[in-house]
Amino acid sequence: MSKRILNCAITGSIHVPSMSPYLPITPDEIAQNAIDAANAGATAVHIHARNPEDGKPSSDLEIYDTIIQKIRAVNKDVIICLTTGGGAGMTVEERVSVVPKFKPQLASMNAGSINWGLFPAAAKIKSYKHPWEKAMLEMTKGFVFQNTFADMEKMIQIMNDNGTKPELECYDVGHIYNVKFLKDTGLIQGKPYLQFVLGINGALGSNVADLTMMKETADRLFGVGEYNWSAFGAGRAEYPICMQNLLLGGHVRVGMEDNLYLSKGVLAKNNGELVEKMARIMREFDFEIASPDEARAMLGITK
Amino acid sequence: MSKRILNCAITGSIHVPSMSPYLPITPDEIAQNAIDAANAGATAVHIHARNPEDGKPSSDLEIYDTIIQKIRAVNKDVIICLTTGGGAGMTVEERVSVVPKFKPQLASMNAGSINWGLFPAAAKIKSYKHPWEKAMLEMTKGFVFQNTFADMEKMIQIMNDNGTKPELECYDVGHIYNVKFLKDTGLIQGKPYLQFVLGINGALGSNVADLTMMKETADRLFGVGEYNWSAFGAGRAEYPICMQNLLLGGHVRVGMEDNLYLSKGVLAKNNGELVEKMARIMREFDFEIASPDEARAMLGITK
Amino acid sequence: MSKRILNCAITGSIHVPSMSPYLPITPDEIAQNAIDAANAGATAVHIHARNPEDGKPSSDLEIYDTIIQKIRAVNKDVIICLTTGGGAGMTVEERVSVVPKFKPQLASMNAGSINWGLFPAAAKIKSYKHPWEKAMLEMTKGFVFQNTFADMEKMIQIMNDNGTKPELECYDVGHIYNVKFLKDTGLIQGKPYLQFVLGINGALGSNVADLTMMKETADRLFGVGEYNWSAFGAGRAEYPICMQNLLLGGHVRVGMEDNLYLSKGVLAKNNGELVEKMARIMREFDFEIASPDEARAMLGITK
Amino acid sequence: MSKRILNCAITGSIHVPSMSPYLPITPDEIAQNAIDAANAGATAVHIHARNPEDGKPSSDLEIYDTIIQKIRAVNKDVIICLTTGGGAGMTVEERVSVVPKFKPQLASMNAGSINWGLFPAAAKIKSYKHPWEKAMLEMTKGFVFQNTFADMEKMIQIMNDNGTKPELECYDVGHIYNVKFLKDTGLIQGKPYLQFVLGINGALGSNVADLTMMKETADRLFGVGEYNWSAFGAGRAEYPICMQNLLLGGHVRVGMEDNLYLSKGVLAKNNGELVEKMARIMREFDFEIASPDEARAMLGITK
Repeated sequence: MSKRILNCAITGSIHVPSMSPYLPITPDEIAQNAIDAANAGATAVHIHARNPEDGKPSSDLEIYDTIIQKIRAVNKDVIICLTTGGGAGMTVEERVSVVPKFKPQLASMNAGSINWGLFPAAAKIKSYKHPWEKAMLEMTKGFVFQNTFADMEKMIQIMNDNGTKPELECYDVGHIYNVKFLKDTGLIQGKPYLQFVLGINGALGSNVADLTMMKETADRLFGVGEYNWSAFGAGRAEYPICMQNLLLGGHVRVGMEDNLYLSKGVLAKNNGELVEKMARIMREFDFEIASPDEARAMLGITK
Repeated sequence: MSKRILNCAITGSIHVPSMSPYLPITPDEIAQNAIDAANAGATAVHIHARNPEDGKPSSDLEIYDTIIQKIRAVNKDVIICLTTGGGAGMTVEERVSVVPKFKPQLASMNAGSINWGLFPAAAKIKSYKHPWEKAMLEMTKGFVFQNTFADMEKMIQIMNDNGTKPELECYDVGHIYNVKFLKDTGLIQGKPYLQFVLGINGALGSNVADLTMMKETADRLFGVGEYNWSAFGAGRAEYPICMQNLLLGGHVRVGMEDNLYLSKGVLAKNNGELVEKMARIMREFDFEIASPDEARAMLGITK
Repeated sequence: MSKRILNCAITGSIHVPSMSPYLPITPDEIAQNAIDAANAGATAVHIHARNPEDGKPSSDLEIYDTIIQKIRAVNKDVIICLTTGGGAGMTVEERVSVVPKFKPQLASMNAGSINWGLFPAAAKIKSYKHPWEKAMLEMTKGFVFQNTFADMEKMIQIMNDNGTKPELECYDVGHIYNVKFLKDTGLIQGKPYLQFVLGINGALGSNVADLTMMKETADRLFGVGEYNWSAFGAGRAEYPICMQNLLLGGHVRVGMEDNLYLSKGVLAKNNGELVEKMARIMREFDFEIASPDEARAMLGITK
Repeated sequence: MSKRILNCAITGSIHVPSMSPYLPITPDEIAQNAIDAANAGATAVHIHARNPEDGKPSSDLEIYDTIIQKIRAVNKDVIICLTTGGGAGMTVEERVSVVPKFKPQLASMNAGSINWGLFPAAAKIKSYKHPWEKAMLEMTKGFVFQNTFADMEKMIQIMNDNGTKPELECYDVGHIYNVKFLKDTGLIQGKPYLQFVLGINGALGSNVADLTMMKETADRLFGVGEYNWSAFGAGRAEYPICMQNLLLGGHVRVGMEDNLYLSKGVLAKNNGELVEKMARIMREFDFEIASPDEARAMLGITK
């Protein structure tokens, strides 16, 4: 199989505006970045919303609505994957509310609880644009990103009820066991679609060995060919982990949610640039980017 | 190195009295099981307290005091390792209070947050001795065993202040990264002593591949020989994981905290029996049990 | 699956008589050791012949005939696996001649070429019983154990023609690729039966990591469940590797071909003792020894 | 460490002229390809000689002399690594004769014996330019590439005597154990320089898992940082294995000895093109190519 899904995570909720002037904040910026990513070849775009005033992660359904409408006005085809991870401090109910509202083809579902230790980043930022940024980063020293078994069951059930395929975010090896547990209860339907998230402080690192462990564990628990998976590494591990994952047979994700740099010391000006780079690398190794329709067929999702 | 530490975890806080009539509950039972374990060869005993009335996990310092005094009245040498994991629902302050009070040579320190999913066990128990048992097991569906970065710093600092060596309980691969993070801050002194805990629902499983991942990750992050480690598997994985760990160069832990059975279908009547079995297996492979003094020298702890 | 094949390799062609006074040499000794091994629980016995005068490995069909008749006079059931590895200096034709002659249920087939570097053992022997021993050990410095693709095809074809199941001896990871190559040509019928031989100087070592690599490679090339396998480690790695292999799901082999010691510094007086020890260990871990009939069913061989 | 050695193997002895019209055959072609490779950024060039009449691999020292002089007339800096692998049918003495004659800075030393099964390639060639080609490919069905312990000792001793650093070609995991054995005898001086050769039929395959096994075994036997290594995969595994090796921290080798294609279905017209592609990929991942002087410092070789 040489066709692979190229997913682009546009803005996320980890990076703060002070880290890059190019981080998309407003619905216009987020939508335009998504459109640019799709034009550069992205099969799917992963969407978080932010408060247009101060860039704070938001669960406001109006903002999501604006973003989605702006993307769909231009591009009817790209897969839109909505987050249910939200931002630090949101309840599970807030996080999952996008699903019944928008019935997206794909939505992220975080497959376990971990310490979400963004605090070391706070010391690296010299001047902050907004007061919430430093507070949010620092408070994560005492923060758990909570996704209990009860939370996960609730989120997947809502996705099942709305025809949304869960993209199961695995931050540590044990999260694959959680997915196996949920699959065995019958809640996860069809082949699970795993996203290996590498490099969050509090969970697994982003060495190639970490990706190997994830892949071998999934092979062992589900069987080779009995699941689909993608991977990415945070920060400078972004392209190395994507590359290694292509070699292992998987899909990839890039984007400013995970990584703000195009190359060492060079900030990406737009998510489209990050997608272009991934596409260029894929061509060097004779991989093709799957179209949205091809991806839907692979993952078993309906348009 | 053929000498290995044999640790025995006497009663823990996971198993409930209805699971085995032999689970030690009262201070007398817990102390006698610890003495029996030491007589059977255990280098160290890992102690939790329970309410003598109903067997519920307890953070009552009086109960701990009674247990410790009863053990020390008979055995002055065995290493006593106190838990700071506590039971579901205790605050970090309650959990760590044993350290300043008793200044143990060794105390457990849980190296990350996970879903603590004991709830599948509830359905296997036909009749309950006490109402709290079922409630405790079932509530874990929505429970996170919380050990944030701030919690961990606080617990290790208190151990450092009291001359207590932390035994760092790693339930998932990412927890080794957490230890690395804490080591790099300077908080963890000397060679870290890791305990790989395999088979908790919500974290890593108990396949031999899981242990291999733990060991390889620790080798990569700390360097071969730059840390000490032990391992055990929950339930029927107890002896297989201990065996595999001996082959990998590590120490072992058995005991009714982790496993109630001597062999398939045969409940252990006493922790001493579980230690005897481990000792017998070790002899077949020409391993020797480290004495408490030898273990203190290996781990760098003072008597 | 808790039932496992316990194979005993009685005398082999690597050890020389000066290494142990208990090494079986004569047809009587070899047969009696095989009978003792079976009585102690061995599912199968792996047979090499030696010259009764001086203990030199032999391809003399008369000697094989005497050994087999002596075993079968007492035990009609144990699986007899004949070697086609022979000894240093024998041609492939000599090595395989036992197959058409005796049509054994099982015969070893060496799955690749390696340096067969026994020479370091020469320096450890203080006094030699026979002149050939030192000469044989030392000549291996310039020796290749040759099993070309043409040789392997010839040997397997002869086995196929005589109803003999090949036990495919893999000394290095690449040998599993050789088996895959031969399987893909259609020559190897049914599920391949691999024997991982660990610790021959010139090929793979006998660390538990070496066994893990073998197992993972076979899983990847054939698929989990699509092959059967056994393993052993040379010398003091014998029981550790067997133990690890039980934990990985495989079968085991012990015996004086591979290891002369019962425990550190204690020579085994008889192959039966080595089998007893393996059986004792298996019981500790709730494994059962497969009977010859159960093994034949597992491996797909006819009586 | 972001600087990596980029080695180019110009023509080798495996590919035959009928496989590509661009395979360098004459001393002029081989030298020009080496110069082009160096101009495209190659740190080192790995040289085999061929008979200019029919392209057959040759051990003729005159031909080597011509090639080396032609390269050095233009480029005084690039590291020249001479083969001692030779071609099928050459004696060890013939193979190693380049070392005392030219005293190269670097020469390959094959670290074990394997089946050298090129024969499946014969069926893929529709028309042959020279009669020796088909004969050579087909005879490998019965061929062992022999490098006994005595051979290896002889070759390394000659390299040591001539100030030549051995590049230790490992075709299977056990070959790393062979290097360890030779290192422990004191024959291999300084940090061993390993070349992992993946994808020769008869030895290890060229899956990323194969490279991982090689790396992990070398880490275990020598210690992280106590050896240098490079890797490549045969045929279409060339760039994937090089890429994976960059991610693992190693050096890379490309060139028409290993791979004739620039991308799927597109033959490389010159080794320079293959080097350019590797350099382009390295830039995408922020790796720099080591200069010859930097490489000499890394490997501990004198100019």
